[in-house]
Amino acid sequence: MANRILSHEGIIDSFGHVNVRHPLHKDRYLLSRSRSPANLTRGDIMEFTQDGEKIGDDPRSPYKERHIHGAIYKDRPDVNAVTHHHARPIIPFTMNKVSLRPMFHMAAVIRKEIPTWDSQDEFGDTHMLLDSMEMGHSLSKVLGQNSVALLRGHGCVCVAQNLNAVCLVSMGARDNAEPVHQTMQIGEVTALTDGEIDMASELLLNDMALARAWDYWIARAGFAGL
Amino acid sequence: MANRILSHEGIIDSFGHVNVRHPLHKDRYLLSRSRSPANLTRGDIMEFTQDGEKIGDDPRSPYKERHIHGAIYKDRPDVNAVTHHHARPIIPFTMNKVSLRPMFHMAAVIRKEIPTWDSQDEFGDTHMLLDSMEMGHSLSKVLGQNSVALLRGHGCVCVAQNLNAVCLVSMGARDNAEPVHQTMQIGEVTALTDGEIDMASELLLNDMALARAWDYWIARAGFAGL
Amino acid sequence: MANRILSHEGIIDSFGHVNVRHPLHKDRYLLSRSRSPANLTRGDIMEFTQDGEKIGDDPRSPYKERHIHGAIYKDRPDVNAVTHHHARPIIPFTMNKVSLRPMFHMAAVIRKEIPTWDSQDEFGDTHMLLDSMEMGHSLSKVLGQNSVALLRGHGCVCVAQNLNAVCLVSMGARDNAEPVHQTMQIGEVTALTDGEIDMASELLLNDMALARAWDYWIARAGFAGL
Amino acid sequence: MANRILSHEGIIDSFGHVNVRHPLHKDRYLLSRSRSPANLTRGDIMEFTQDGEKIGDDPRSPYKERHIHGAIYKDRPDVNAVTHHHARPIIPFTMNKVSLRPMFHMAAVIRKEIPTWDSQDEFGDTHMLLDSMEMGHSLSKVLGQNSVALLRGHGCVCVAQNLNAVCLVSMGARDNAEPVHQTMQIGEVTALTDGEIDMASELLLNDMALARAWDYWIARAGFAGL
Repeated sequence: MANRILSHEGIIDSFGHVNVRHPLHKDRYLLSRSRSPANLTRGDIMEFTQDGEKIGDDPRSPYKERHIHGAIYKDRPDVNAVTHHHARPIIPFTMNKVSLRPMFHMAAVIRKEIPTWDSQDEFGDTHMLLDSMEMGHSLSKVLGQNSVALLRGHGCVCVAQNLNAVCLVSMGARDNAEPVHQTMQIGEVTALTDGEIDMASELLLNDMALARAWDYWIARAGFAGL
Repeated sequence: MANRILSHEGIIDSFGHVNVRHPLHKDRYLLSRSRSPANLTRGDIMEFTQDGEKIGDDPRSPYKERHIHGAIYKDRPDVNAVTHHHARPIIPFTMNKVSLRPMFHMAAVIRKEIPTWDSQDEFGDTHMLLDSMEMGHSLSKVLGQNSVALLRGHGCVCVAQNLNAVCLVSMGARDNAEPVHQTMQIGEVTALTDGEIDMASELLLNDMALARAWDYWIARAGFAGL
Repeated sequence: MANRILSHEGIIDSFGHVNVRHPLHKDRYLLSRSRSPANLTRGDIMEFTQDGEKIGDDPRSPYKERHIHGAIYKDRPDVNAVTHHHARPIIPFTMNKVSLRPMFHMAAVIRKEIPTWDSQDEFGDTHMLLDSMEMGHSLSKVLGQNSVALLRGHGCVCVAQNLNAVCLVSMGARDNAEPVHQTMQIGEVTALTDGEIDMASELLLNDMALARAWDYWIARAGFAGL
Repeated sequence: MANRILSHEGIIDSFGHVNVRHPLHKDRYLLSRSRSPANLTRGDIMEFTQDGEKIGDDPRSPYKERHIHGAIYKDRPDVNAVTHHHARPIIPFTMNKVSLRPMFHMAAVIRKEIPTWDSQDEFGDTHMLLDSMEMGHSLSKVLGQNSVALLRGHGCVCVAQNLNAVCLVSMGARDNAEPVHQTMQIGEVTALTDGEIDMASELLLNDMALARAWDYWIARAGFAGL
């Protein structure tokens, strides 16, 4: 359902993915086989160790970039869901010093600092995909304790405590990029204060607000009868 | 129906709301329980005093920000419908001195002055939601006799004499923000004159024009058979 | 069908209209009663003299702005179809000297000169609607032999030899405004030459090209079985 | 299916086309009769020599601009599919020196150089359509060994080794134009390096990635059951 939601809301398209830490085996995660998020169903979900190895005898091809997720699950016990996406409005922010810091309350969930990881720094010219645990760890180090990290010329990674929340964070990154860009063309951007970001994000990430958003997203994505 | 219309037209999403003064008890208002506007039905409507207290023994959770509405109904006997929303194109205008004054006739309904309320001025760092009568009154004072007030880093509030009209005003705020932003990039914005705003808004807010717009909105929102 | 097409393509919404010269009585025109173009059906069409008087004993309310059309039909025997609309991307061009001259071949149908009519010039402060023959004539004089005229702070009027063509011209005005605006932000706009506009518009307005476009529009607007 | 995909994704509209080299007769190509891509079906496909002559006794009208394709098939034995389209975001880049070089990995498929062909250079004022083999050859010479060429005031042509790939290249041109334009308004554009373009495009144009994208596109275009 998170895959369908993020597809419907224009965050992921034929590429990009969302995944979740295994609810019983904390050192594993669940992620679809390599397939467009818009198309997949329950049967497409595979199980991986944190090192990206398939659990069991599964012949299906996984996403090359799954190593992003394993590396973050290792480093961040507070994180239970991760997305990697290329929502177009964030691309301009991946290659310069313009801050994506939240400028309106709904975006507070992306938190105060949004660092940028550049594959050139440690790996030089690559095919731009994070397809090794080494690259996953490198990105995870730049992400640190933040909720969103940008990838130069590529996209971003978003993390949260659960699937509902990581959807809100993923949309928040896109929904903040657009008005920041627009505001820069007509005046100064006034970001939220540290206190506002702390308080607004706590409120938006509580169970009641997340349930309300989820209820809205699944209806839009066509799960109206659920 | 107003909730569905404003959702369909992209004014409100999982957050934001529209409500109406009680047609019989002028000191009460009707507002949905805390639920996404796109999803709600007639049974979700709750009744409140102007101080935001639930009428009767209703166990459902109301919107935290309902106090916006009660405070305005107290101060503005001419107002019978209020929306609070975060339509994205208005966000850049909530944090600077750029005027949202109408630049084309369809936006005349947002009226001559569009003041900005900043939660920092009286309340300092907050979670950005107007969840007390005190904040509601503070906003209502800034709104004054105008039809739209912006909320810094947050969104706006729109008021009108009835539900049809408040939908037109809500869309007018968004529909004016976009061309003002675009015009600033290629030249000078020429706002409508006071006389034009008075005459055009009177014409657009008459019953016949509102009925025509409503007829259009409900067809688009899927109420075609009504 | 032209009403439905222009609604579906985002040219007209609850306001704006399209009409056609009467095929048998050249001094009359056909225009819907005052209703949203998206909703209307064959039975909504009314008949008017060029002075905007209803033919026969028709109790329905006509559009206030019908006088735009009558005045143009009087002055331009080559014109058999007219639209009046407020497609948002053209609004920024109604209030400054930035030229809307075509910059790509599909927009050549809007022709070389796009004059602007300002209601202030002859009428001072108004409610911005062209609701008299006097205003219609004033606009028609500014339009002259061109295909599109802008209305300051309001929208535009488009004319052509038939309904198919006036739809293409109406979309051309919007479709040219967007890239002109975008190009101004990254460099110089190079408009088409006079020769290119003449030849490209002649090609696009021939029967075969118009039939191909019409075939596309009606399928999109939901008339797939026709 | 490629026609439907490109229509649904907003690359082609009532004009623009996609075609493929004949799989058995390498000196022929398959292209629809002159009809909107969104509407056509299998029966609309016609067969042409590389000089644009119809194979057999086919009474239907072909696209005037088919000569683009024949000229490229002659010059580029590695190319098996070609599109010609006017996706709006690329129009501003057809008339200035602003580089469309890829700035994010998904756009790497449009390759390092994106030359511009101007009909004025060899043909002076025209109706802007490439309706002769002479114009086709002129464009093909400017395209050279690249994957995309822009046409001044008109649109672009995209080539690839197969239909899946030419869809990805066609969308890549549009999807790169948008963030390049946006980035120029807030800072410097950092294009991908030569090595990154080589490696990322090779990865995206392999069979597995193309199948995943195709699977997504056909579901969106309404071929969900296939």
